[in-house]
Amino acid sequence: MKTKERIISAALLLFNEQGEANVTTNHIAAHLGISPGNLYYHFRNKNDIIHCIFLQYRDHLRNSFTPIKGPASPAVWVHYLDAIFYVMWEFRFFYANLNDILRRDSELHSQYLAVQQELTVNLQLLLRELNRQCVLVIPDNEIDELTEVLKMLVSFWVSYQSAQSLNPQISQSVLYKGVSRILLVLKPYFHPKQGSELTQLMAHYQTLAAKPSDPFHK
Amino acid sequence: MKTKERIISAALLLFNEQGEANVTTNHIAAHLGISPGNLYYHFRNKNDIIHCIFLQYRDHLRNSFTPIKGPASPAVWVHYLDAIFYVMWEFRFFYANLNDILRRDSELHSQYLAVQQELTVNLQLLLRELNRQCVLVIPDNEIDELTEVLKMLVSFWVSYQSAQSLNPQISQSVLYKGVSRILLVLKPYFHPKQGSELTQLMAHYQTLAAKPSDPFHK
Repeated sequence: MKTKERIISAALLLFNEQGEANVTTNHIAAHLGISPGNLYYHFRNKNDIIHCIFLQYRDHLRNSFTPIKGPASPAVWVHYLDAIFYVMWEFRFFYANLNDILRRDSELHSQYLAVQQELTVNLQLLLRELNRQCVLVIPDNEIDELTEVLKMLVSFWVSYQSAQSLNPQISQSVLYKGVSRILLVLKPYFHPKQGSELTQLMAHYQTLAAKPSDPFHK
Repeated sequence: MKTKERIISAALLLFNEQGEANVTTNHIAAHLGISPGNLYYHFRNKNDIIHCIFLQYRDHLRNSFTPIKGPASPAVWVHYLDAIFYVMWEFRFFYANLNDILRRDSELHSQYLAVQQELTVNLQLLLRELNRQCVLVIPDNEIDELTEVLKMLVSFWVSYQSAQSLNPQISQSVLYKGVSRILLVLKPYFHPKQGSELTQLMAHYQTLAAKPSDPFHK
């Protein structure tokens, strides 16, 4: 890995583990055993690094939430729900402090809004396609609002969980609980013929949510 | 109004209008035309004032979300949904910065958790009662999780809206949109015989959400 990539990856690790506000560029350099000067050769400041991490976030959202092409199998559901888990886990420092990070960097905020807009369109297309395949039965005029509720659940699940405890630990099981809540909100819209599939999906994510936290396998 | 009460009420007004982080005790004193010394006679610091505002928040939650005694009429729904709007509007500075405010004051955070626990129990009792009256049809084992989703929607609607715009304006119509989303999440659980009532309720809050913002009538 090149130094620039190593810096981004170390920053992401430290932000997630210690909270972005508690990590300086000096901490990142020390973690990598490089000089601050070497880090500053690649990045002007911490925000610069956050911008690069944001591009990874954007790519993940772009690649993982494109509408399906073929028939919606259980594997398709697992793909999307795992992608929701992944984005919440991999970028949890961002979700833990979303409004602060956006407020202090209007360029990043603009980019965030553009990505959210793309994501919204993709999610709406996805729900419409699942409707068309009779997997879901969502009244047409509710798709946009339901998309918003789902986006909100994902965007603020980490913050919600942080408010719910004096010593919040954003573990994987906490985030799988978030995925379960997404399924709960969608459950009433599953076509009756999807009953057993839905039950299995819910059981799968409830099991993951009940698990004590393991070190994450990358 | 006594000076102490005037200080609390001015602080709430300024926090809501300018953001809690941008308002100091000096601003509050100047707004009231009293000396900072006079303010400090009543409150040690800004956090002290926030604690007093929190008691108002707690009292509102306690008084407004007690489970219903009689039959669930449309007026009962309007009572609870208006109470959700009221708490989001009246304490919007708190919701706009919830995690920051809780993180820096563990005593307040403990009190918040206790109030949330009370509220959770009340909301679960309320949903069970609405089930018993056949107004809602929520599977028993989903009541707790659904309560959590509703609480999360209310707690982070203001934050979500702040992230969705470069110049967020937390207007009343934005908050009525939040109330509409609560109804959307509950909609699939309404008993079929409640169809026309539900349609009217949804139309009522959608109309309020579509209205340009008026000055709030206290």
